[in-house]
Amino acid sequence: MPVQPVSVDDIRRAIRNVPDFPQAGIQFKDITPVLGDPRLFAGCVDLLAGRFAPGEVDAVVGIDARGFILAAAVAYKLRAAFVPIRKRGKLPFKTYEQSYDLEYGSNTVALHVDAVKPGCRALLVDDLLATGGTAWAAVELLKQVDARVLEICFMIELGFLDGRKRLAGLPVRSLVTF
Amino acid sequence: MPVQPVSVDDIRRAIRNVPDFPQAGIQFKDITPVLGDPRLFAGCVDLLAGRFAPGEVDAVVGIDARGFILAAAVAYKLRAAFVPIRKRGKLPFKTYEQSYDLEYGSNTVALHVDAVKPGCRALLVDDLLATGGTAWAAVELLKQVDARVLEICFMIELGFLDGRKRLAGLPVRSLVTF
Repeated sequence: MPVQPVSVDDIRRAIRNVPDFPQAGIQFKDITPVLGDPRLFAGCVDLLAGRFAPGEVDAVVGIDARGFILAAAVAYKLRAAFVPIRKRGKLPFKTYEQSYDLEYGSNTVALHVDAVKPGCRALLVDDLLATGGTAWAAVELLKQVDARVLEICFMIELGFLDGRKRLAGLPVRSLVTF
Repeated sequence: MPVQPVSVDDIRRAIRNVPDFPQAGIQFKDITPVLGDPRLFAGCVDLLAGRFAPGEVDAVVGIDARGFILAAAVAYKLRAAFVPIRKRGKLPFKTYEQSYDLEYGSNTVALHVDAVKPGCRALLVDDLLATGGTAWAAVELLKQVDARVLEICFMIELGFLDGRKRLAGLPVRSLVTF
C-alpha cells in the first residue's frame, strides 16, 4: 500500500494545545506530537523544504532551540549547511548580535561572523511565527553576513499576532495558521 | 566524479578549538564548521546513524539544544520519530524529571510522559560526551517511559573526562575522541 502523503491538516490535528503554558492565559502550541510521529515529522520537514531541491539552497538557518529541530532536518534533506542562530553568549566564536523588543524587555540573538559565505542562498526555518521579532532579528543578522534569504518558513503561524507585518516585504510561508 | 565519503578525520579536522569558552581554561570544541559544510554535515549525520536503517529505530532522542541539530537530522534520515529532552520547565506537557550532578551544583532534564510508546527502540544522539551526566540522566528518563536504548552516539568524546565510566554497561559510540 503506498504511503499517503502528509497534509497540513494532518499536522494541524496533531498539534497539541496546552492551556496556561508557560504562563496563565497563553494557549501553547505543543509540536512534540508531530515530531513524535515518524510519518508526520518527515512529512512536515518535506513540506517546509517546499519547492526547493538539493543544490538550490546553500544554508538552512535554525533558531535556538526548537527551531534547530526542523531546520536541521530540512538542511539534511536539501544537502545544505546548517547554520545556528542562538541567544547571546551561546556561540563560542566571534558573532554579530541583534536585539529585538518583547512585550516586556528585549532579547538578543547572535550569529557567527563566518557562518556563511557572502551571497549564500539561505532558507530560514522556524517552528512558530508569533510576533515576528525573532525572525526579524534573524534576517537582520543574515544581512550582516551578506546572505540572500530565499524564504522564511514556519510550521505554525499565530495569525492574530500579526507577525507577517513585522516581516513585510520578505518571502514568508507557513504550514498551519491559527 | 563520485562524491568522496566523509571520514571521521574530515570531521575531526573541521572542529574548531575555541580557547577559554565559556570560561577561562576550557578548550571549547566548536562544531559549527562541521554543520556549516553541507558535505560534512550530511556525512556526520550518516556516520551517527551508523549501522541502523529506516525501520530499525522508532525514535531518535535529542538533548537541548545543540543535541537537537544532529538528532533531528538522524531521525529524518532513519524515518524515526524525534523526541526532545529539555531542561526543566521548557516542555509544556506532563514530564518525568531527572537531576544530575555538575562540578558545581546540579541540572535537571525532563521528558514528556507520553514521548514514546513502551518498548520503543530509541537511539540517543548528542554532540558531546564530556562527564556523561546529561546522557546518564537522559537514559534514566528513557527507562521511565520503558524505552529500549539501542545505542548512545556522540559526535565528540572528551576521553580525559571519563564520561564512558558514567555510562558503563550502555552501548556508547563516538565519532571523534579528543
